Amino acid sequence: MAKDDGKKAKKAKADKKNGGKKDKAKAAAAAPVKAAPAVSPLAPEGGFPALPAIAGVRLSAVEAGVRYKGRLDVMLAEIDAGASVAGVFTRSLTRSAPVHWCEEIIAREAEGTAPKGKYGILVNSGNSNAFTGSNGRIGVETTAASAAAAIGTRPGKVFVASTGVIGEPLPAERITAKMDELAAGLSPEKMEFAARAIMTTDTFPKGCTRMVEIDGTPVTISGFAKGSGMIAPDMATMLVFIFTDACIAQPVLQKILSARNAATFNCITVDGDTSTSDSLVLAATNKAKMAPITSATSAAGKAFSDALGEVMLDLAQQVVRDGEGATKFVSVSVTGAKSTAAARTIGLAIANSPLVKTALAGEDPNWGRIVMAVGKSGQAADRDKLTIRFGDTVVAENGWVSPAYREEDGAAYMKRAEIDIHVDVGVGSGAATVWTCDLTHRYIEINADYRS
Amino acid sequence: MAKDDGKKAKKAKADKKNGGKKDKAKAAAAAPVKAAPAVSPLAPEGGFPALPAIAGVRLSAVEAGVRYKGRLDVMLAEIDAGASVAGVFTRSLTRSAPVHWCEEIIAREAEGTAPKGKYGILVNSGNSNAFTGSNGRIGVETTAASAAAAIGTRPGKVFVASTGVIGEPLPAERITAKMDELAAGLSPEKMEFAARAIMTTDTFPKGCTRMVEIDGTPVTISGFAKGSGMIAPDMATMLVFIFTDACIAQPVLQKILSARNAATFNCITVDGDTSTSDSLVLAATNKAKMAPITSATSAAGKAFSDALGEVMLDLAQQVVRDGEGATKFVSVSVTGAKSTAAARTIGLAIANSPLVKTALAGEDPNWGRIVMAVGKSGQAADRDKLTIRFGDTVVAENGWVSPAYREEDGAAYMKRAEIDIHVDVGVGSGAATVWTCDLTHRYIEINADYRS
Repeated sequence: MAKDDGKKAKKAKADKKNGGKKDKAKAAAAAPVKAAPAVSPLAPEGGFPALPAIAGVRLSAVEAGVRYKGRLDVMLAEIDAGASVAGVFTRSLTRSAPVHWCEEIIAREAEGTAPKGKYGILVNSGNSNAFTGSNGRIGVETTAASAAAAIGTRPGKVFVASTGVIGEPLPAERITAKMDELAAGLSPEKMEFAARAIMTTDTFPKGCTRMVEIDGTPVTISGFAKGSGMIAPDMATMLVFIFTDACIAQPVLQKILSARNAATFNCITVDGDTSTSDSLVLAATNKAKMAPITSATSAAGKAFSDALGEVMLDLAQQVVRDGEGATKFVSVSVTGAKSTAAARTIGLAIANSPLVKTALAGEDPNWGRIVMAVGKSGQAADRDKLTIRFGDTVVAENGWVSPAYREEDGAAYMKRAEIDIHVDVGVGSGAATVWTCDLTHRYIEINADYRS
Repeated sequence: MAKDDGKKAKKAKADKKNGGKKDKAKAAAAAPVKAAPAVSPLAPEGGFPALPAIAGVRLSAVEAGVRYKGRLDVMLAEIDAGASVAGVFTRSLTRSAPVHWCEEIIAREAEGTAPKGKYGILVNSGNSNAFTGSNGRIGVETTAASAAAAIGTRPGKVFVASTGVIGEPLPAERITAKMDELAAGLSPEKMEFAARAIMTTDTFPKGCTRMVEIDGTPVTISGFAKGSGMIAPDMATMLVFIFTDACIAQPVLQKILSARNAATFNCITVDGDTSTSDSLVLAATNKAKMAPITSATSAAGKAFSDALGEVMLDLAQQVVRDGEGATKFVSVSVTGAKSTAAARTIGLAIANSPLVKTALAGEDPNWGRIVMAVGKSGQAADRDKLTIRFGDTVVAENGWVSPAYREEDGAAYMKRAEIDIHVDVGVGSGAATVWTCDLTHRYIEINADYRS
C-alpha cells in the first residue's frame, strides 16, 4: 500500500506539472537527456531492506495532505521512557524552527535536566516550516503538544522535523487533525511506512539495519533517511532517524554519534548547498539485556560504534545515490594531507567542483580539473608530488601525467556507474573519503525548468 | 582581420567537434536550449571599445598555431624602461609555472632588486603550461629568453602567461619561431589584436579605457582581459593586462592594484572554480607629464585608484558576461554584515550556490534558496532580521516573506537579463557586492557533452 501511495503521488505531481507548464514539458520531452527515471539508476538493488523492529519503538504514518495529496506525509515515532537520545543538526545560521526545537531537547538531555517520560518524533513532509518568522515556533509547539497528548508525554520530549517548501506557514491543523489516527496506528513493524512518509522528491525510500553482538547479546540498529530529492522552491533536505535497543548513556551515545557523523553524513555532497532542516535523531531504548556501554573507547563501545557507523554510511551513500539527476556514484579518497580535516576539505573541493562534476557526467577523464580543485581548496598540497588514480589506474604522478597512462584507459573507466577517485597530495598522513554524484542536465531540469 | 580570424577559428573548432562527435552533436541539436550563441547575449553593446594607445607601450600578435590554427594566439607587449609594474595572481596551490615566474618578477620589482631595462609580456592561448612538471619551467625560460632577445631586455623582465589545455608540454618552439615576426609587428595601436590573441573560448574580446585628469594632466588607463570561456579539458582562466602612462612608484602601484582587485576581480564568480593561471599585470609607464603619485591616499592617488577601479570593474564584469552558458548578469549586494569580508563571503555563497543559479536560469524568484545560501556561508546573520530585495521589490523581511510581496512581481523581475539581488543580514555595517551569472543547460553542454 505504501508503495502504491508513493507512485500515485509521483504520478499526480507529474500530471499537475504537465498541466500547468505545457511548453516546458514539451521542451523537456525533446531534451537529449533520458526521461526522468522513476527510481534513480544508482538505487541499491533489492529495494527497501527488511528492517527489524526495535524493542521500545513504535511507528505510524498517515496521509495528512500537508502539501501532497494521496500519499503518506506525516510519521510519528513513540519511544519508551528510559531511552537515551542523541542528535546532530545542520549548522546553517538560517536553520528552521523545528531544528532549534530539537537542539533544545538534546541540550536538556545532555545536561540531564530533561523531564522523564516517553519520547516522540513527529515528522511531516511538504512544508519545512523554515523562514516562517515567529509562526515557525508556534507551529512546532502546537504539533509537539498534540503529539505529546496523543502518546502521553510532555511536549518537550517530542522531536519535530519538517521538510518541504520553505517560507510558507505550516498548516499545523492538518497534522493535529490526524493525531488520533497516527497514535492508533503505532506499531513496531512500520519502519518502511515511516520512511516513505518523510520523502519529498526522493525516488526511493532509504533504510539500513545491522546486528552486532556485544558481550554475547545481539544488539540491533535500524534506521531510515530521506534526501536529497528536491521540489522547487525547496532545498536539499536530509532527515535521518535511527533506533537501537542498545543500553548506553546519553553522553556516550552523543559522543559516538557525533564522531560517526563526521565521517558519514558530513562527508557527502550533492551540490554543496546546505539545508536549513538537516536533522539526525538517534534513540537507544536500553532494552537489550546487556551491561550498559559506559565509554566510547571500550570494546563494547567500539563494537556499537562500528555497527552504527555502517548504518550511517549506508544511509548517507543512499542519499548520494538519490542525488538530483545523478548517473554516477563517486567516491573521492584523499591521502597525504596535513590532517583528516584537511583531507576532507580537499575531497569536498573536488566533490563540489562544477567542472569536476560535469566532466564526470560527460564520462570525461579530465584529471586537470582535479588538479584545479586541489589547488583551490586552500589546503597544503605539493603540486610536484601529486598523485591521481582512477580506480587502480595511475593517471598523474610527480606533478605531471603518468608516463604509463593512456587516455583510453581513463575514458573506459569513466563509463562505469561507480567511480573511485584517489588523490595523494604528498604533504602528510591525513586521509578522508567523501562521496558525491555527477552534475547532469537533469539537475538543471529539476532545479531550473520546473517550479511546483 | 583580427575579427575574421576569430570567427574562422570558432567555425573550424565547431566543425571538428561535429565531425568527431556526431551523436552528441545530434543530441545537442535536439536539446531544449537555444543554439550556442556566437557571442554571449550579455556582451556589452557596441563591441570592443577604441582603446587609446599608452605612451611607452607597444603590442603585437601573431598566429603561431600553439593549439588553434588560423587565429591569433600569441601576443607580445614591449614596455619602455622606467615603468612601474605591479601584479596579482591566483592563490591556487597548483598554479602554473608561468604564474610562479611572474610572481618572482613582481617580488624583485617590489624589493627594488630587479635589473633595469625594458619589460616584456608574452602570452599564448591554447596551452596553459600548467601541471607539466619540470618542463613547465623550461618552457617559460625558453620563451622568456626568446622574447627578451627580440626586444632587447633580460629574460627576468619578461612576464609570461599561458592559457589553454593543461598537462600537455608547451610547444615553445612554435612560439619562439614567431618571435621575430612578433617583434617586427610591435605598435602602440594593437590593443585589440592583443586582446583577441589571448582568447580561448571567450565569445568576445574584452577591453576598457578611462581618462582621468590628475593635477591638470590627462592620464590614460587602457586594459584588456580574457575569460571565462572554456574548452575541455581547460578550466576557467582569466588573464588581464592593463597599461597606463601615469607616474607612480611600484610599491604605491601594487598597493592600489591589490586594493582594487579585492573589490573587482576577486568579487566575480562563474562557477566557483579557481584557475591555475589567473594573472593580472598592470604597467605604469611613468610617461605622463605629472608629479609622481607617491601615496595611495593622496588626492592624486585616489583619483588614479578610482579610474583604475572603474577599468578593473568593467573588465571583471565583462568576464562574467561571457561566463559559460550565461543568460543572466547577476549582481548580489550584501549589507548589514559584520565586516566587508563577511559580506563578500555571504555574497559569494549566494553567487556560487547551484540552487540559486539554477533558479535564476529558470527565472524562478526562489528567495528561499537565498536564505539557504546565507545560512550556509558560515558568517553571522540574524535570520529574523533578514531582508531580501529583487531590484526595488522587498521580497522578505523580518524573517519571513514580506506582506506586500506578490509572487507575480518577483516572477516578472526574474525575466530581466540583468538581476540585482540585495540582502541585508541585520548584524553590522559590512557591505560588499559580487557579480555572477546563471547556471544553464549550456554550461553542462560546454563542460560535459563535448571534449575537444
